[in-house]
Amino acid sequence: MRTVGVDLGGTKCLAVAMEAGVVVDERRVPTPEGEAGLLDALTGVVTEVRGDREVLGVGVGVPGLVDRAGVLRFAPNLPGIVDLDIKAELEARLDLPVRVDNDATCAAWGERQVGAAQGWHDVILVTLGTGIGGGIVAGGALLRGANGFAGEIGHMVVDPDGPPCPCGQRGCWERFASGGGLGRLAQQAAAEGRAGRVLALAGGDPALVRGEHVTEAAAEGDAEARAVLADLGWWVALGLANLANAFDPQAFVLGGGLIEAGDVLLGPVRTAFAALLTGGPYRPPIDIVPATLGEHAGAIGAACLFDIVREIGPS
Amino acid sequence: MRTVGVDLGGTKCLAVAMEAGVVVDERRVPTPEGEAGLLDALTGVVTEVRGDREVLGVGVGVPGLVDRAGVLRFAPNLPGIVDLDIKAELEARLDLPVRVDNDATCAAWGERQVGAAQGWHDVILVTLGTGIGGGIVAGGALLRGANGFAGEIGHMVVDPDGPPCPCGQRGCWERFASGGGLGRLAQQAAAEGRAGRVLALAGGDPALVRGEHVTEAAAEGDAEARAVLADLGWWVALGLANLANAFDPQAFVLGGGLIEAGDVLLGPVRTAFAALLTGGPYRPPIDIVPATLGEHAGAIGAACLFDIVREIGPS
Repeated sequence: MRTVGVDLGGTKCLAVAMEAGVVVDERRVPTPEGEAGLLDALTGVVTEVRGDREVLGVGVGVPGLVDRAGVLRFAPNLPGIVDLDIKAELEARLDLPVRVDNDATCAAWGERQVGAAQGWHDVILVTLGTGIGGGIVAGGALLRGANGFAGEIGHMVVDPDGPPCPCGQRGCWERFASGGGLGRLAQQAAAEGRAGRVLALAGGDPALVRGEHVTEAAAEGDAEARAVLADLGWWVALGLANLANAFDPQAFVLGGGLIEAGDVLLGPVRTAFAALLTGGPYRPPIDIVPATLGEHAGAIGAACLFDIVREIGPS
Repeated sequence: MRTVGVDLGGTKCLAVAMEAGVVVDERRVPTPEGEAGLLDALTGVVTEVRGDREVLGVGVGVPGLVDRAGVLRFAPNLPGIVDLDIKAELEARLDLPVRVDNDATCAAWGERQVGAAQGWHDVILVTLGTGIGGGIVAGGALLRGANGFAGEIGHMVVDPDGPPCPCGQRGCWERFASGGGLGRLAQQAAAEGRAGRVLALAGGDPALVRGEHVTEAAAEGDAEARAVLADLGWWVALGLANLANAFDPQAFVLGGGLIEAGDVLLGPVRTAFAALLTGGPYRPPIDIVPATLGEHAGAIGAACLFDIVREIGPS
């Protein structure tokens, strides 16, 4: 039986059709503005990808706080969208069961079911991109929390005197351990004369240095760029250690664009994490591995929401 | 049927006998040093409190990392105790089923079963004492993690440039939001001339100011002492907001000695928490209430380990 999963992003909607754990078709459309356009786009992309097959249900991953009834409560990256009952609206349009969850939660579930986290019962997916998203699997089930809002780990404050975050706080983890954080570390290194190649790639102006210049220079083998990535790795590890102390997972799966840097980033993350974890020598090692589903993780995980037989929290 | 619960602390062992959710007897003995003395003391205090009744089992809460087999792996406050198989040793001595868990996890379960957290399915107990302990209930079950080590929330780093922690890190939450953190805030206030009464209670030397002087002056109604407690409340709230973003609980139950300050502390905690929580206006309020079981929480919760029908994580 086919299931459909959609990852609703700030710029595009990616839909996949899955059969027996394998993606058999996919479509993508730009994300329009406004409620009506958004719902029409979702309906259209699902209708295309379902084809003429029988479909068990449609999962949707959305970037924001989704309550357990499938209502999107708060989505800073979807301007003008507040309190949108995506589940009810899509069920009426599609005449199919619809499940809606946070996009990072979906991505975690996708990695757990058919990606890098298969076989782990206690595992946290951390998506390192423009911001940081998280999805938590505990005891083999998705941990959703009282309202479905669990896993908003990017806004864990790790330095109250740190840079301001659009969320209103200062020093959220995602200000340090994301693409934006890498850009800031790189600008600082460039201004201090510790990032020659990176600065050259940015045209010589430290203010124009971005994270991409670091990953590009690091891929060329530039030692200074790799040192900046190691600094980033320390910040990634700091947040992972905080989460490990709270959740005691078997493993972390790291996804998002930054992970394409590979072992140049993952190596420093693993080293710093081992030093930061409380009681580290007295506990089994915690694996830190890259995600394998790439940009499809959210859509695949949304489709896999129909695999769920048990979740943690009142439903 | 009677159950017995023991809270093994760094200085004393407190044992309770419970029947039908009520404490019917209790005993306490000093905590001796060394493995043999410790096991003898536990055996003795359990034997006293069980009396001649039929006993379903014995729960033990211990201050450290306990694995899921009941082995105490790491206990910084019990010198010389490493890798002690408390469950097996006590079962051999007592000829009764024994369950062993972290003390703060036990306290959380006690509050959930017969204390302030009754009726909540997603609730986090935070013990604010010399350090910070935590116990997490998710979906109505104890969240124990892959190894039983979940809930070590006191060592969540909230300021990498903060004061050093005995755990080896800098800026752990418990350096700020514990009794020691209150002492440091008060010393700073005294040195800056913002804590006249507190300083007087400490004999006039800012270096001798401790948390107790603040709570004493605050109880007298001293406005400067209350301002210091409000600063402490901000740090408490910072960590609670981090946990709320990750776990999405319905409520926090705050225990430990600091909570005896009452609303002078809880009021500022609630105010700061509301401002710090991501997406606060878009989500249901999260209650923050004081624990009700006091120093008995750990022993009661240990006895209540025999209520557990489901826990989160592989067993």
